[in-house]
Amino acid sequence: MAVNAVREPVFTLAAGPVSVYPSVSRAMSRPVHYDFDAYFQAFYEEVVGKLSRALRVKEPALILHCEPAPGLEAAAASLIGRGDVVLNLVSGVYGKGFGFWAARYAKEVFEVEVPFNEAIDPQQVADALKRRPETAIVSVVHHDTPSGTLNPIAEIGEVVRRHGALLLVDAVSSFAGMDIHPGTCAADLFVTGPGKCLGGAPGITLMAVSPRAWAKMEKNPDAPRDSVLSLLDWKDAWSREKPFPFTPSVAEVNGLDGALDGYFDEGPENVWRRHAGAARACRAGIKAMGLALWPAREEIAAPTVTAVRVPDGLKDTDILAAARALYGTVFSKGRNETLGKLLRIGHMGPVAEPGYVMVALTALGGALRALGRPVDVGAGIEAAMAEIARADNRP
Amino acid sequence: MAVNAVREPVFTLAAGPVSVYPSVSRAMSRPVHYDFDAYFQAFYEEVVGKLSRALRVKEPALILHCEPAPGLEAAAASLIGRGDVVLNLVSGVYGKGFGFWAARYAKEVFEVEVPFNEAIDPQQVADALKRRPETAIVSVVHHDTPSGTLNPIAEIGEVVRRHGALLLVDAVSSFAGMDIHPGTCAADLFVTGPGKCLGGAPGITLMAVSPRAWAKMEKNPDAPRDSVLSLLDWKDAWSREKPFPFTPSVAEVNGLDGALDGYFDEGPENVWRRHAGAARACRAGIKAMGLALWPAREEIAAPTVTAVRVPDGLKDTDILAAARALYGTVFSKGRNETLGKLLRIGHMGPVAEPGYVMVALTALGGALRALGRPVDVGAGIEAAMAEIARADNRP
Amino acid sequence: MAVNAVREPVFTLAAGPVSVYPSVSRAMSRPVHYDFDAYFQAFYEEVVGKLSRALRVKEPALILHCEPAPGLEAAAASLIGRGDVVLNLVSGVYGKGFGFWAARYAKEVFEVEVPFNEAIDPQQVADALKRRPETAIVSVVHHDTPSGTLNPIAEIGEVVRRHGALLLVDAVSSFAGMDIHPGTCAADLFVTGPGKCLGGAPGITLMAVSPRAWAKMEKNPDAPRDSVLSLLDWKDAWSREKPFPFTPSVAEVNGLDGALDGYFDEGPENVWRRHAGAARACRAGIKAMGLALWPAREEIAAPTVTAVRVPDGLKDTDILAAARALYGTVFSKGRNETLGKLLRIGHMGPVAEPGYVMVALTALGGALRALGRPVDVGAGIEAAMAEIARADNRP
Amino acid sequence: MAVNAVREPVFTLAAGPVSVYPSVSRAMSRPVHYDFDAYFQAFYEEVVGKLSRALRVKEPALILHCEPAPGLEAAAASLIGRGDVVLNLVSGVYGKGFGFWAARYAKEVFEVEVPFNEAIDPQQVADALKRRPETAIVSVVHHDTPSGTLNPIAEIGEVVRRHGALLLVDAVSSFAGMDIHPGTCAADLFVTGPGKCLGGAPGITLMAVSPRAWAKMEKNPDAPRDSVLSLLDWKDAWSREKPFPFTPSVAEVNGLDGALDGYFDEGPENVWRRHAGAARACRAGIKAMGLALWPAREEIAAPTVTAVRVPDGLKDTDILAAARALYGTVFSKGRNETLGKLLRIGHMGPVAEPGYVMVALTALGGALRALGRPVDVGAGIEAAMAEIARADNRP
Repeated sequence: MAVNAVREPVFTLAAGPVSVYPSVSRAMSRPVHYDFDAYFQAFYEEVVGKLSRALRVKEPALILHCEPAPGLEAAAASLIGRGDVVLNLVSGVYGKGFGFWAARYAKEVFEVEVPFNEAIDPQQVADALKRRPETAIVSVVHHDTPSGTLNPIAEIGEVVRRHGALLLVDAVSSFAGMDIHPGTCAADLFVTGPGKCLGGAPGITLMAVSPRAWAKMEKNPDAPRDSVLSLLDWKDAWSREKPFPFTPSVAEVNGLDGALDGYFDEGPENVWRRHAGAARACRAGIKAMGLALWPAREEIAAPTVTAVRVPDGLKDTDILAAARALYGTVFSKGRNETLGKLLRIGHMGPVAEPGYVMVALTALGGALRALGRPVDVGAGIEAAMAEIARADNRP
Repeated sequence: MAVNAVREPVFTLAAGPVSVYPSVSRAMSRPVHYDFDAYFQAFYEEVVGKLSRALRVKEPALILHCEPAPGLEAAAASLIGRGDVVLNLVSGVYGKGFGFWAARYAKEVFEVEVPFNEAIDPQQVADALKRRPETAIVSVVHHDTPSGTLNPIAEIGEVVRRHGALLLVDAVSSFAGMDIHPGTCAADLFVTGPGKCLGGAPGITLMAVSPRAWAKMEKNPDAPRDSVLSLLDWKDAWSREKPFPFTPSVAEVNGLDGALDGYFDEGPENVWRRHAGAARACRAGIKAMGLALWPAREEIAAPTVTAVRVPDGLKDTDILAAARALYGTVFSKGRNETLGKLLRIGHMGPVAEPGYVMVALTALGGALRALGRPVDVGAGIEAAMAEIARADNRP
Repeated sequence: MAVNAVREPVFTLAAGPVSVYPSVSRAMSRPVHYDFDAYFQAFYEEVVGKLSRALRVKEPALILHCEPAPGLEAAAASLIGRGDVVLNLVSGVYGKGFGFWAARYAKEVFEVEVPFNEAIDPQQVADALKRRPETAIVSVVHHDTPSGTLNPIAEIGEVVRRHGALLLVDAVSSFAGMDIHPGTCAADLFVTGPGKCLGGAPGITLMAVSPRAWAKMEKNPDAPRDSVLSLLDWKDAWSREKPFPFTPSVAEVNGLDGALDGYFDEGPENVWRRHAGAARACRAGIKAMGLALWPAREEIAAPTVTAVRVPDGLKDTDILAAARALYGTVFSKGRNETLGKLLRIGHMGPVAEPGYVMVALTALGGALRALGRPVDVGAGIEAAMAEIARADNRP
Repeated sequence: MAVNAVREPVFTLAAGPVSVYPSVSRAMSRPVHYDFDAYFQAFYEEVVGKLSRALRVKEPALILHCEPAPGLEAAAASLIGRGDVVLNLVSGVYGKGFGFWAARYAKEVFEVEVPFNEAIDPQQVADALKRRPETAIVSVVHHDTPSGTLNPIAEIGEVVRRHGALLLVDAVSSFAGMDIHPGTCAADLFVTGPGKCLGGAPGITLMAVSPRAWAKMEKNPDAPRDSVLSLLDWKDAWSREKPFPFTPSVAEVNGLDGALDGYFDEGPENVWRRHAGAARACRAGIKAMGLALWPAREEIAAPTVTAVRVPDGLKDTDILAAARALYGTVFSKGRNETLGKLLRIGHMGPVAEPGYVMVALTALGGALRALGRPVDVGAGIEAAMAEIARADNRP
């Protein structure tokens, strides 16, 4: 094992990759099977079936064998043709980032942008589509992780559906942590991954693609083929009868199978309730400690990440370092536009639990004190506990 | 765990993905750490250092977080500019395939091609480069897996070096199974992966990039950026001081670390000797059974895969199915041009062992007999055993 | 990991502990739960239920938290009272060994003994019981591993049942490798373990205890209590309502659960057929190689271990060392009275497969040749293959 | 995997078996090797060497292949002869319990007993030995886990050493959690296990035996032989040259190797500091919450378990159930004489960390509130945090 002078963290309460469930660790240690063998081919089909069930779609889901960031790049490359006008909705860093990929392939990208602690108003989307009726594709991030904020995806989806454009939804850090599915939001291309709320490892992308989206890609002359950027190459790869375009990441598929089993064994509703309960308790604690949430309004705060404003006069990196040194606890910084302005506490997968909220509040509070900033941790804990006592977040 | 009606294979003696070493399975089950945390960043740097040592290069090696097929696509996209003339050497299906990617990016691709059971003659390369002195890049597959044949890469490398072109070598299925390194063959871009002779899982690409190749990419205006196809994005990602362009496949890096530890613990020379010994024994057995090797000459047969001609009148798929049914043993078919013409027995990683050769010979022999084709398995075993008795292939 | 100058074996084809199934390895890496917690208590009850189902008994099976050798000692200590006359049946080293324990607790032990390559004749048992009608307990080893021989346990059980004595059966190395259960042989105390044909790890003992046997122990004033030798202490420990006498071996119970799952998933009948097929093929090969089986008659040869006479003039340890050096293959020696006289090839759990038989035959043949002893390995392989072609030993 | 209607705990903060370190889980999933093979024999010797180093003894340490409770029974059986007068020191349930085993083998057992929230005074031992100079053996529990109290073992050891009796020390739940070794306390028989502060699995016993203790056992005509109760059977089993009396628990030895590696990698002093810091913080929190520690004086409170008095009018089981339901957190009850009177929070192995103390305090506080008992959790957290801020408990 590689020598490592840095102490291993005790608690990873970051925005993902997350600490995986023990059952996922075990699944990743299963035998690696040969991808041309009937056993693996049947297994892959079973896993895709299970994934489709988790995504609540009728058509076979799609696995791409790269992480969701390149997965989204591939989605842009495959879906967006050189003649397409794309409406990109921007409420955070990831939304902003997708615009760059979209611009690489589209005729034109125009954006509705809100401050990065706010959410897109569906009416803005309706207005934008009214202004630009030729819009073929709308892209939106459900949970813009670097802000810890949610967009009202169901309402946005309804607006887009009525307009007739295709909707691409980045649900990487919300799926499996709350009740969000392609059907919930009328998504044509719904992108997520195992490395967040499913409590799996990063390394592959999970997608649901509507028949309309497949048709669009098939008609797109620029859609990549024989490429890691191609969704079409993998369209039929779910079937045990069809070959893989290239070698799938066997161990990641094993891990996904384990993560999905855990998801169904616990019950999706129970998993979501656990995430929501942890986030509610965490927000209550943060506020009672005298700290400020990053989201402009609590109703847009994600149940999977709590974003906290960095107190004036302090540096995010100092806080993170102190929390790590004193409590072995790892949080996330912001990213790009939110960098330096907020800290993020993850409630994803196995750590979406009351106990880890207590760890988060004390580690953050202890770090702030170590930096000379008084915070009322006791009050924070009390507020979080009150929420837990109220919350019906146990199975 | 996914329901699977197909019986799990007992012996995977295929051309990869291979059965991983038990220590790799365990490494893949290590905790998944957060990629922005100092622990993982230090770990990643350590693993890259270890990988550089395995590749015997001074500069930090490169890990791409997708499988070697897209890794090679990315290499083509990054290295080959629209003004480049590329000489692609073709001795098999993978060499042929790379030409398609090269053509996507190059001004022109010209090829030296030999029959797919033969090897490139370095003189052909010299002649070609003489004819086309403007050639900027030469690409070659060391071990063209679908043929089980090796190209004389050291000699080819010397020719290319003298000419001054950049050399891209696909050593995916030979590295760590024999004495082949970037330095051995003067490769500027040396591409391999953990899922073959290192006995690891597929899912990432391992590369050595020379300073000349980095310079070429940096000057290439078409080299992808902010893309899964970009090598440049990842140039400095080895350093604990630099961020990752996107989330690395944490579990695969864990697994790579375990695979490299095993490689060094056994000793590279011992690992190569084990592969060579297994392949020699297997070829001896195949010939003594009255079967024909696919390579035109035994000296170009790879030590990591033994390709066997499908006996006239039989179908490859029938043989494979019978070997699987009777002996739980999985072999590889051919691919594209070699499909239907040959079968492949892998000697990669943990199965590069005399005992697995015996399994292979009996399973293949038993399958042929079950299909009504008499073969002298006893003679095959005897010949293989004679080779093992001779071979100094034990540490 | 401990430094180890000895090379790790590649194939463990010994008489147990066996190479465990991969699913057992994973099960052993599950979280270790607290034995007083409701989760573990419910889990333990479930595992005992599963074990009872595997043993085909109605009453809850018994797990002792030590290996079967001390498990048998505990059985003797618990069952045999100072007034008891015990008939100990001896057809091998383990039968002989049990007599010593029995003598420690009994009023008198008398034995029926046959040569250690023979089996007990049920008539001998009937005669012995007729001579000594006061006999309260009969003990017998089903598969005396150091001889690789089976006793006709169903017939013996019937004789004992008619007489009315209690029957203790050591089925450690036959259960789960063939159709043997407490009900098959009217056993009152049936002793086995996970470390042989279940393909699990050694470290615990699995028992089925009849109501008659429990009653006998409860009336036995010498039966140990508050002791590792006590069966009674653990009588009710299967129930989630009852405490454990001392901490159970949590990881071993996890592993047992994995082993039992695998057993049921494959189907017991399929598992037995696999063992029988491997052993038949092995015996055919051994004979065709010109070697002699140890059992006096092939019908008493166990389906889980093939015992082979050491050829005259050779030393067992030299043969084992050569097989290990050349083929990385580990066999078992004999033990006590059979030490030096025979070698043993295990067919237990995951290695009860045709392919491993081929490994065994070539490794043994190669070792003999390396020691200057000519054997016809080719003929051996051919004979084994003929058996496999005949055998209906695939699911 | 066994069906389990009970929800898996999230935090096991009990008195052991403990949640194992991830590296131990991986070690337990290593291949199971054959105990008669040279590889395992060398490995076993290496592990015993490593264990001896951890115990800081020169002679090879001893592994018994059963859990420490039967390990202590075996120690009593082996060491105590029918002519021996034994002084058993009793400060808790485990000390009391050992007296029963001692009485089974000794001529006479006499005791010094203190209330179960107190510690033995070395002067009491000196006085007792003066009264009974013929005392041959003194037995004492270092950390009587059901009380969470420590005895002054160094001083007691010095008294016993001067008197010349043999000293048996049960250090099961203190070794590896603090600076206690056979040499610290002049122990002749020092008994511990991997399942507490080493963060390993239960299932084996670890001992250090002095030459004097071995000599005593060898002269003891009643010392068991050919028995699970025999220490002598295993005296030389550490050596790769000597056979094992019965099959060792291979997977447990693998796990022990992993646990010892982790112990040395972190550094024993760092591990102890981590345990001490967690316990100090926990005690500070408990007191500030208005709860009472069980130990009569804080200086005898163990650094590995915090015992808390059950508040008047409440039932221990109700508190545990509420902590489990609301916070997924598992504590220990008392045992025998302490049952119903106290709760125990474990700080052993991986959970000896500030963050887990916060989990413990909030889970306990939340449970008490749910039962209608007001406690000042905020104050408890503050007090614990103050201790952590003070404590130099980070490496």
